[in-house]
Amino acid sequence: MARRTAAMLYVDCVSSLASMDFRMDEWGVDLAVSGSQKGFMLATGMAIVGVSQKALEASRSAKCSRTFFDFADMAGANDKGGFPYTPPIQIMYGLRASLDMLFEEGLENVFARHARLAEGVREATRAWGLELCAKCPELYSDTVSAIYVPEGFNSDALTNHIFDTYGVSFGVGLGEMSGKAFRIGHLGSLTDVMVLSGLATVEMGMADLGYPVELGSGTRAAQEHFRNTAKVALKSAA
Amino acid sequence: MARRTAAMLYVDCVSSLASMDFRMDEWGVDLAVSGSQKGFMLATGMAIVGVSQKALEASRSAKCSRTFFDFADMAGANDKGGFPYTPPIQIMYGLRASLDMLFEEGLENVFARHARLAEGVREATRAWGLELCAKCPELYSDTVSAIYVPEGFNSDALTNHIFDTYGVSFGVGLGEMSGKAFRIGHLGSLTDVMVLSGLATVEMGMADLGYPVELGSGTRAAQEHFRNTAKVALKSAA
Amino acid sequence: MARRTAAMLYVDCVSSLASMDFRMDEWGVDLAVSGSQKGFMLATGMAIVGVSQKALEASRSAKCSRTFFDFADMAGANDKGGFPYTPPIQIMYGLRASLDMLFEEGLENVFARHARLAEGVREATRAWGLELCAKCPELYSDTVSAIYVPEGFNSDALTNHIFDTYGVSFGVGLGEMSGKAFRIGHLGSLTDVMVLSGLATVEMGMADLGYPVELGSGTRAAQEHFRNTAKVALKSAA
Amino acid sequence: MARRTAAMLYVDCVSSLASMDFRMDEWGVDLAVSGSQKGFMLATGMAIVGVSQKALEASRSAKCSRTFFDFADMAGANDKGGFPYTPPIQIMYGLRASLDMLFEEGLENVFARHARLAEGVREATRAWGLELCAKCPELYSDTVSAIYVPEGFNSDALTNHIFDTYGVSFGVGLGEMSGKAFRIGHLGSLTDVMVLSGLATVEMGMADLGYPVELGSGTRAAQEHFRNTAKVALKSAA
Repeated sequence: MARRTAAMLYVDCVSSLASMDFRMDEWGVDLAVSGSQKGFMLATGMAIVGVSQKALEASRSAKCSRTFFDFADMAGANDKGGFPYTPPIQIMYGLRASLDMLFEEGLENVFARHARLAEGVREATRAWGLELCAKCPELYSDTVSAIYVPEGFNSDALTNHIFDTYGVSFGVGLGEMSGKAFRIGHLGSLTDVMVLSGLATVEMGMADLGYPVELGSGTRAAQEHFRNTAKVALKSAA
Repeated sequence: MARRTAAMLYVDCVSSLASMDFRMDEWGVDLAVSGSQKGFMLATGMAIVGVSQKALEASRSAKCSRTFFDFADMAGANDKGGFPYTPPIQIMYGLRASLDMLFEEGLENVFARHARLAEGVREATRAWGLELCAKCPELYSDTVSAIYVPEGFNSDALTNHIFDTYGVSFGVGLGEMSGKAFRIGHLGSLTDVMVLSGLATVEMGMADLGYPVELGSGTRAAQEHFRNTAKVALKSAA
Repeated sequence: MARRTAAMLYVDCVSSLASMDFRMDEWGVDLAVSGSQKGFMLATGMAIVGVSQKALEASRSAKCSRTFFDFADMAGANDKGGFPYTPPIQIMYGLRASLDMLFEEGLENVFARHARLAEGVREATRAWGLELCAKCPELYSDTVSAIYVPEGFNSDALTNHIFDTYGVSFGVGLGEMSGKAFRIGHLGSLTDVMVLSGLATVEMGMADLGYPVELGSGTRAAQEHFRNTAKVALKSAA
Repeated sequence: MARRTAAMLYVDCVSSLASMDFRMDEWGVDLAVSGSQKGFMLATGMAIVGVSQKALEASRSAKCSRTFFDFADMAGANDKGGFPYTPPIQIMYGLRASLDMLFEEGLENVFARHARLAEGVREATRAWGLELCAKCPELYSDTVSAIYVPEGFNSDALTNHIFDTYGVSFGVGLGEMSGKAFRIGHLGSLTDVMVLSGLATVEMGMADLGYPVELGSGTRAAQEHFRNTAKVALKSAA
């Protein structure tokens, strides 16, 4: 899809790359930024950047300040098989192993697995009678679900209580969602069984704080979803 | 408790040491055998053996065959700070770290944690309407629960199905329990949240195979138990 | 040492911090930058920055572009025990272990060890009849030695040959030293015995390429130095 | 080579397998024992046993005591893809990686590498004017060299001094060699450069204790050997 405009399409795919479909060239993306610590299942420490020919050319005459990373430094060193600065070798070896895992599972299967896990979380949310921040399926993310707490409850109190009592860390609501929503991440090296653990924990926390939510209801809804889709998952992997 | 008999008290504490109370001297134990891979939370590769003075003396004149390990070889080398054979250094360093973790938590807290987790598994078993192999509380183990499947079901079919479908490995029934019971291990570096994950998985497996068990019932019973005892757990840790 | 000037004193201590003495406050340093991957003996992935009150205040009104790291972001999050971005947790745990190692050895001993190892490298350089880039002892670094190759030789050919033939990587000459000098790094978790290995390797490479250097001469000079100072090293550690 | 005798040929290849050639079937070996921690470059924790059909059959009627390991237990479980006892999973995964490394280098190259490294140690021994315990080339081992110290010196004092002063651990003389010889191991993931480090250390220790050995002489002899054979090593790897 060629774009006849000077505008650039930038994509922050930190929390989605390698867990959900992404097509840089086909979608006409000019700059994509990701990291080692999410879908690639590695330690923090390496940014992964994709740049289109158009953006690369624009960077040569761009006037915006750049203090840390310049495509020209990197391209010059990379051409000779090197790096302009000390590279995170350990993560580059790790990336090789991550890619092996991802390709062995098959990207189609990786994406299908995340879609199935995410739907389990959404089924649990519905069983709890709570609402996703994403208002319609087109906005659903298969790697993270932000969930509104009921009126009169503070989502930060929930995540703090769960961390203190059960030792599990959930994401807080960011920006205008602060105090109103919490986030369940579901990406990377994750299985249905691991998701159930997180859902059961959220339920204990909500029950402890008097939420109008039936204990076990979301876990059971996710169990049903996972049971009913287990064979499909097995089939698509075969 | 001095024993006035030539008989020896041997204890297999492979699956209990460092997770449940054990008092070698106070209980008059002559020989205790454990391993690195259970309560000590390490890789397989090191046996841990305790021997009483009485057993050590008896070993000098014992006629039973011994082809591999002799207390005399070990004691002689240990006296000089050495080992008669190549020792598993990596596990000995690991044991130092494991002991630090156990002592930091406090043995009393470690034992209480295992008792609480085990009771959660037993509550789930009751909610499922199933029976433990241990017939009375005195026989309960806080590190593993063996559970009878209902008449007409084969426990090996259950553990095989769960492994194939959900990637989780439960213990099979051993000896005369073969096919009649499966085992849930609950020891080592384990939390309530991790136990819920296992229980929810067993339920999916039983539901898949048509067990007369309500999906989610055991998980919910364990959630109730863990919620109600969470503060106690926190208090005893403080 | 209070400075009565608006000028700032910036120190790049990437390759020296934790191996050589550094006194930020006492020396009136305004900004010091280091990393995880040298003296702290960790993987690449974390910058370590020190900033004086004076520089912090200046940063509030500074007009220079900053696109990546702002003290204000970091200070705000740190105050609440957090980070503005995903932190490299694994390296922060590693840093705890590195600091334990450094403090157990004792910083005075760590600095003395590097001075002793560096002098071994300098003794070898003298025995080879070669010259250090550092023209006088005040300029010597105890963490890296840059060494001129003789007239008519190319230092890059030497480092390439050694890498290809012996699998050891030495630093190339940077900037105007390119082709004229190579660098031997000697910092971090390093012993006299490990230094000898590097020196013997450099000698093999120089002999292979026809350098007017006697094989084994530098290694022997360093052996003499290490032998003669071994007791001192032991004593200062006691 | 079929053997027409009831006698069995047992081989202890703990310190040689995967570093030197070994042909169980071709040489008519009945029982071979090795371990994970030498040529396979792994942690201690797994025995590796090879058994001929003849020995396997003999074991069925053998009367010698066996308390720990029985081929029948192992064969029965292995047939069903299992183990009779808890297996050292971590070492089995490690073995897969070790074998990948060995096969990538090529067994012929692995054996040639050990022969070259061993000859370097022997050249150093000759330069020191010392004698190997192995009296003729047919008895040389390419994985370990036992070296007599001169009359009037105690080899244990040497290994103790080197460990205390330089932090390097060499093998003591075993059995009747006790006090008379020390051992340099040279197997596994080892390079010429690493060997030089060990030789230079032995020299410092001998010089410290007044041995009639010229400092640096053995290191230099090994450097010469490694230089002269580096191209051969490179060629055979190509």
